[in-house]
Amino acid sequence: MSALDAALAGLPLLQPGHVWLAGAGPGDPGLLTLHALSALGQADTVVFDALVDERIMQFVAPKAERVFAGKRGGRPSAEQADITAQLVGFARAGRRVLRLKGGDPFVFGRGGEEVLALAEQGIPFRVIPGISSGLAALTAAFIPATLRGENQAIVLATGHSADAAEVLPGDVDWAALARLGQPMVLYMAITHMPAIAGALMAAGLAEATPAATIVWATTPRQRVLVTTLGALAGELARAGLRSPAIVVIGSVVATRARLLALIPALEEVGGWARAG
Amino acid sequence: MSALDAALAGLPLLQPGHVWLAGAGPGDPGLLTLHALSALGQADTVVFDALVDERIMQFVAPKAERVFAGKRGGRPSAEQADITAQLVGFARAGRRVLRLKGGDPFVFGRGGEEVLALAEQGIPFRVIPGISSGLAALTAAFIPATLRGENQAIVLATGHSADAAEVLPGDVDWAALARLGQPMVLYMAITHMPAIAGALMAAGLAEATPAATIVWATTPRQRVLVTTLGALAGELARAGLRSPAIVVIGSVVATRARLLALIPALEEVGGWARAG
Repeated sequence: MSALDAALAGLPLLQPGHVWLAGAGPGDPGLLTLHALSALGQADTVVFDALVDERIMQFVAPKAERVFAGKRGGRPSAEQADITAQLVGFARAGRRVLRLKGGDPFVFGRGGEEVLALAEQGIPFRVIPGISSGLAALTAAFIPATLRGENQAIVLATGHSADAAEVLPGDVDWAALARLGQPMVLYMAITHMPAIAGALMAAGLAEATPAATIVWATTPRQRVLVTTLGALAGELARAGLRSPAIVVIGSVVATRARLLALIPALEEVGGWARAG
Repeated sequence: MSALDAALAGLPLLQPGHVWLAGAGPGDPGLLTLHALSALGQADTVVFDALVDERIMQFVAPKAERVFAGKRGGRPSAEQADITAQLVGFARAGRRVLRLKGGDPFVFGRGGEEVLALAEQGIPFRVIPGISSGLAALTAAFIPATLRGENQAIVLATGHSADAAEVLPGDVDWAALARLGQPMVLYMAITHMPAIAGALMAAGLAEATPAATIVWATTPRQRVLVTTLGALAGELARAGLRSPAIVVIGSVVATRARLLALIPALEEVGGWARAG
């Protein structure tokens, strides 16, 4: 047995009737955790989202059942209640169930809702964190989330409901976020970027604040668009960039240009431009 | 070839004269990424921090050089400038260098400083994200970082300089953070928790806001202390909890009690209480 196989052998086992929620990370199979890889090999049933990379699905055991539970293109999407009902059903049938999500299940992944639903039905579960797509996207674009002397906090926020006319409990207060003065990483924010950028600038965040958008981070389709907060919404519309995308706004974005100026070949030697 | 060997075989190689900064995650070796595991097996020299778990260091190739560069107990600690000078020296000597850090190198890990220093010397590098300790600690304590209907943002902040009399650029504005009204995950905040909690409450954050502290997350030494913002500093002092610790403040903390009430054995079946 190799040292690596020994590493996997020591991990906890997925038991019949249990559900594991695991994060698959941002896309690159190299960013899978050992727990997630182990679970992929053990599961009888894998319930997976659209954002789980196809290269990762290759690690599912050949005889395991694969259940698609995400939205992409024209394919039908499952409702959240249907997904949890399915998980409960598979567990009650004695299967070893892996619920695989892009990124981290507990960071804008609806994992909290799913484990509450499982617990209400008495289904034992485990949650395995994954590399969160927002943080991975920054790294893949050579942007540190935090940099000494620049910031001592980073805000992860979702922009998917920024259009709602009414502010609900839990909604992001974009003016208060602007006044915090720390960089922010926005998930699912492309659609509402004109409204979000407008609210941030109205509250005093400078138009010249550096901003970047990373699409398909850590995959061969990765693209990075660097601009300013003032130009961000217009540039996104012109470039036609779409999900999956991460937007980062703040002074740390400037680190990317500093690094690329020092090592012009950085995308090739240290990035995901030509992975493998 | 095993599934793990096949997964590792397709990953990029660490080249002589290059430095990879990799995150080792929060502690549990099962939360290592495949990229990090691959790098551990390839590196000629591994420069590691105190917070890298000893079980992870077992994956270093037997003939590789191990260089300790962190603080722990009475052992001497290296200065940041010394560490980067060492990394440059090893790379110039043609070694394949792995710089291994706890958590994620780009989230309060000083990875940004290190890659800027490497780039200034023309040393090619790659950064491999790790599972950030703060997010992993929440998961290991059954606390979702985000929960639909509760929050649409999560703030990661460091509390290690919260005592400074003078507010410097980049410092956390605790009053503005309180007014944002979103949950926060605090790294390295134990020492200054009385000042931080006081500032948050002075700005209007309710004393009754749920708060939890997780020490040694995802390791066999993990402990979780649940309290309120008002009682947090006192409880920490009474319990004598120390680093490595993550503090989380916000409504999502209440999810832990809801889950444990539904599945009393949750720590055993789904947690890190008796991992393996």
